[in-house]
Amino acid sequence: MRLLFLGDIVGRAGRRAAIEAIPRLRKRYKLDFLVINGENAAGGFGITESIHEELIDAGADAVTLGNHAFDQKETLVYIARQERLIRPLNFPPGTPGRGAALIRAKNGADVLVINAMGRVFMTEIDCPFRAIDRELTACALKSGADAILIDFHAEATSEKQALGHFVDGRASLVVGTHTHTPTSDERILPGGTAYMSDAGMCGDYNSVLGMDTEEPLNRFLTRLPRERFEPALGPATVSGLAVETDDATGLAVRVKSLRLGGVLEPTEPLFWVE
Amino acid sequence: MRLLFLGDIVGRAGRRAAIEAIPRLRKRYKLDFLVINGENAAGGFGITESIHEELIDAGADAVTLGNHAFDQKETLVYIARQERLIRPLNFPPGTPGRGAALIRAKNGADVLVINAMGRVFMTEIDCPFRAIDRELTACALKSGADAILIDFHAEATSEKQALGHFVDGRASLVVGTHTHTPTSDERILPGGTAYMSDAGMCGDYNSVLGMDTEEPLNRFLTRLPRERFEPALGPATVSGLAVETDDATGLAVRVKSLRLGGVLEPTEPLFWVE
Amino acid sequence: MRLLFLGDIVGRAGRRAAIEAIPRLRKRYKLDFLVINGENAAGGFGITESIHEELIDAGADAVTLGNHAFDQKETLVYIARQERLIRPLNFPPGTPGRGAALIRAKNGADVLVINAMGRVFMTEIDCPFRAIDRELTACALKSGADAILIDFHAEATSEKQALGHFVDGRASLVVGTHTHTPTSDERILPGGTAYMSDAGMCGDYNSVLGMDTEEPLNRFLTRLPRERFEPALGPATVSGLAVETDDATGLAVRVKSLRLGGVLEPTEPLFWVE
Amino acid sequence: MRLLFLGDIVGRAGRRAAIEAIPRLRKRYKLDFLVINGENAAGGFGITESIHEELIDAGADAVTLGNHAFDQKETLVYIARQERLIRPLNFPPGTPGRGAALIRAKNGADVLVINAMGRVFMTEIDCPFRAIDRELTACALKSGADAILIDFHAEATSEKQALGHFVDGRASLVVGTHTHTPTSDERILPGGTAYMSDAGMCGDYNSVLGMDTEEPLNRFLTRLPRERFEPALGPATVSGLAVETDDATGLAVRVKSLRLGGVLEPTEPLFWVE
Ligand SMILES: [Fe+2]
Ligand SMILES: [Fe+2]
Ligand SMILES: [Fe+2]
Ligand SMILES: [Fe+2]
Ligand SMILES: [Fe+2]
Ligand SMILES: [Fe+2]
Ligand SMILES: [Fe+2]
Ligand SMILES: [Fe+2]
Repeated sequence: MRLLFLGDIVGRAGRRAAIEAIPRLRKRYKLDFLVINGENAAGGFGITESIHEELIDAGADAVTLGNHAFDQKETLVYIARQERLIRPLNFPPGTPGRGAALIRAKNGADVLVINAMGRVFMTEIDCPFRAIDRELTACALKSGADAILIDFHAEATSEKQALGHFVDGRASLVVGTHTHTPTSDERILPGGTAYMSDAGMCGDYNSVLGMDTEEPLNRFLTRLPRERFEPALGPATVSGLAVETDDATGLAVRVKSLRLGGVLEPTEPLFWVE
Repeated sequence: MRLLFLGDIVGRAGRRAAIEAIPRLRKRYKLDFLVINGENAAGGFGITESIHEELIDAGADAVTLGNHAFDQKETLVYIARQERLIRPLNFPPGTPGRGAALIRAKNGADVLVINAMGRVFMTEIDCPFRAIDRELTACALKSGADAILIDFHAEATSEKQALGHFVDGRASLVVGTHTHTPTSDERILPGGTAYMSDAGMCGDYNSVLGMDTEEPLNRFLTRLPRERFEPALGPATVSGLAVETDDATGLAVRVKSLRLGGVLEPTEPLFWVE
Repeated sequence: MRLLFLGDIVGRAGRRAAIEAIPRLRKRYKLDFLVINGENAAGGFGITESIHEELIDAGADAVTLGNHAFDQKETLVYIARQERLIRPLNFPPGTPGRGAALIRAKNGADVLVINAMGRVFMTEIDCPFRAIDRELTACALKSGADAILIDFHAEATSEKQALGHFVDGRASLVVGTHTHTPTSDERILPGGTAYMSDAGMCGDYNSVLGMDTEEPLNRFLTRLPRERFEPALGPATVSGLAVETDDATGLAVRVKSLRLGGVLEPTEPLFWVE
Repeated sequence: MRLLFLGDIVGRAGRRAAIEAIPRLRKRYKLDFLVINGENAAGGFGITESIHEELIDAGADAVTLGNHAFDQKETLVYIARQERLIRPLNFPPGTPGRGAALIRAKNGADVLVINAMGRVFMTEIDCPFRAIDRELTACALKSGADAILIDFHAEATSEKQALGHFVDGRASLVVGTHTHTPTSDERILPGGTAYMSDAGMCGDYNSVLGMDTEEPLNRFLTRLPRERFEPALGPATVSGLAVETDDATGLAVRVKSLRLGGVLEPTEPLFWVE
């Protein structure tokens, strides 16, 4: 099975690049399933229902979130009816929406998509390790799902790597998001789970995390806000990770990062096009 | 001019891989200057004088540090006499050692090596932006140094990217360290400074930040220490960044990440070997 | 019912002062129940079994803990058999010991003692609000316990005050610990729960948090350790909070801070001695 | 000389109570100098020029600030002309306004007022210890100022206590602000400097830090904003610290906390009224 995960969409530049790329990528790689993190899709802060629907219409099977999940107030309401929009699993009980969903792929396979959030240098929430463990126990690879994709939205590389090892052999893929910077440590862990510390963002990398450089730099220098943060509008890179799973086990057999457009060096899963 | 920077050496596995690789890399790429971050070289915590000397003897022109700079108590004393060992510039006045040094390369060029530390999610210290600005004013590219290399030891990608833009055009290279995870955002910024958010570590990536997985994972799960952290001893990857500068300007003209050995996908600056 | 709570014992000075004071205070105020926080009783770091027993023998009905609960490795073992030693409730499942205990007072009343830990600026653990809510539901005031005492070990005054309001009317007392500095906001909240943001410590206040001033000050100035932290050994203040509850409701009717000895201004619950 | 310091004014309730109390307190205690922290005076966030002027008109000799100093944008402009409004000294160079000012008291004495901000669990700024040290060297007690008052706006009690010891004997008073909760550790340190970890706030204590309880509690429980923070409007307590200095040395000879009105137990410097 062929999965593609794309990292945090930042603002209009990232959104347009992603929406334009998704149908082409689905076709070029004959993808079975595509997930994209949308926590910064609306001007850098959260996601509106119409943007979520645009992403689904473009061909995303699911959209994951993170600490910015509810920056757009309307998300608190519409998330209930959007079954492909997944917010962090380990938010407090009672949070609107779902933290995991079993989603039917175009090829008929059932994919469990989990979004969880780290706690190191982030909001104080409940344990992501135990929360994920509960989901994987309730819906195990092969018995419950044909593939399992975990978007772990976290800051610290230590927490991400520890989680990768924690679920190794029980998920098809653990991919980090939130730092908006792609790492080059993608690989298959010893137990068969594909891993990458961060998928990077879909946005303009000539920036600070996808936001126009001036204001973030001003704040580091002066410690005072001068203006609002605005997404950078230069050419965006679509950034993420391609994973091929073994249908018999649901585990990963091939993994390769994807970067397309913008100022970063391009790369793609050549094993799917050769 | 050909520069190579290698990220945080973690423990014995990383040290051996680095010491074995350095002479070969110098020769293979005809390097003019090589810097390596050694803050975790001694069992994961700091660096002894003999390890520092081993690295210099192997062919490093300078060794940079970070938050673990003085984990080995002897460093407080011997750093005064080790002119190629650079600790964070923005540590408090009175800290032993130096935060920047002009080092003569084998080709006769003078390279300013700066080590600075971020403040986001790290120790409370003075402003790295202003500290670096002072150094770059005192010893500017071309008038004061043929090349300028900045190792910015920081956690947050926002702070790293902001610093890259802040010095763009005034340094040959800004490279991040500390997360022990290589990023794939290496490129030349609009003003001519080579940039990479994190060089990654020289160590065993089948681990948590180069440390044996069991104890870090135990701490995330139980929040209690059970044992000491021990460096992982599997095959190490040597990870870093190759930069070629224009002799006329000191700015970057080519940049490429390097990864060699271990479990990560290998890459190298092919433009130097073709 | 007459309850006395005493804050974090720091090292030998605090321990001796507390052990000497406890029997006298029990007698002077005709106390029904006395709880003391012992997380720093052993040289500033944790508590040994023999110190715990000394405190119980001196007349404490229960000993509470905090982030330093398991600094002494032996505590992981002996806490199972010490039914009056309470560690934070919201530590991960599987943590040795208990986070709440119903303890029989000398007057035959049953007192529920809860220790919980805040999350703001502290270790990443599970939600103290929900954990406490579950305990109060399982063992409610009057139906399950004659009095309920909550030691909320937390850094941020915001989290402490929010918790006070959260349980107001459902506990006899919420008292903060951890800052080692007594606050003067003790009072009865509108719903009948006694509240004080921090009980202060039992230790030498001519210090930094009960530790000898020199090394903490050195670290603030140089950001480098020079020596170990050592408890200050000057005259200690015994610091805490006296609460009288209404036997019919279990809620507070009188509250007054207690400070005895050392360099702080003394105060005591005069309503019990006049 | 008789000094009174009052802690952070929070919103309208705190402001009205302070403005009403200041003239009465000046008269009742024959005060020579009065300083009040105004960082939350404007609806909880910063201070407008007209509020600042109201406080001065009511009888404050100086107004200090903190992390909320510039929450009202106009402060960036008007602070230049308001010589009695003091913002944290260790903000970056170039920050509008001043971090220390020598202010002439009604009795003709010159009082150096310093506002500095801690770094533990707060914004990343430069070292408050060294910044204060420089001011005390430039304008020493007796040779440069008849009294020296330091408002140390900080979260951690460790940092506050370390600073108290650091300047002991060189300032008349070090008083903490920012936690909005009065401590009861006011005393004269061995070298003669009056010290109190936190002055508390001028505001409604039936609240969370002076803000209406509902929304802060909601955020602790759900981790999501529902509404804006609004100052609590119940009866406010005026909270602070009274210090008498020796005219010959500028050091403290008497110290006593002050609390007036609202839900906290009242206290006052009886040595000035008996
Ligand atoms: Fe994001
Ligand atoms: Fe995020
Ligand atoms: Fe490191
Ligand atoms: Fe580091
Ligand atoms: Fe403590
Ligand atoms: Fe503590
Ligand atoms: Fe405040
Ligand atoms: Fe503040």
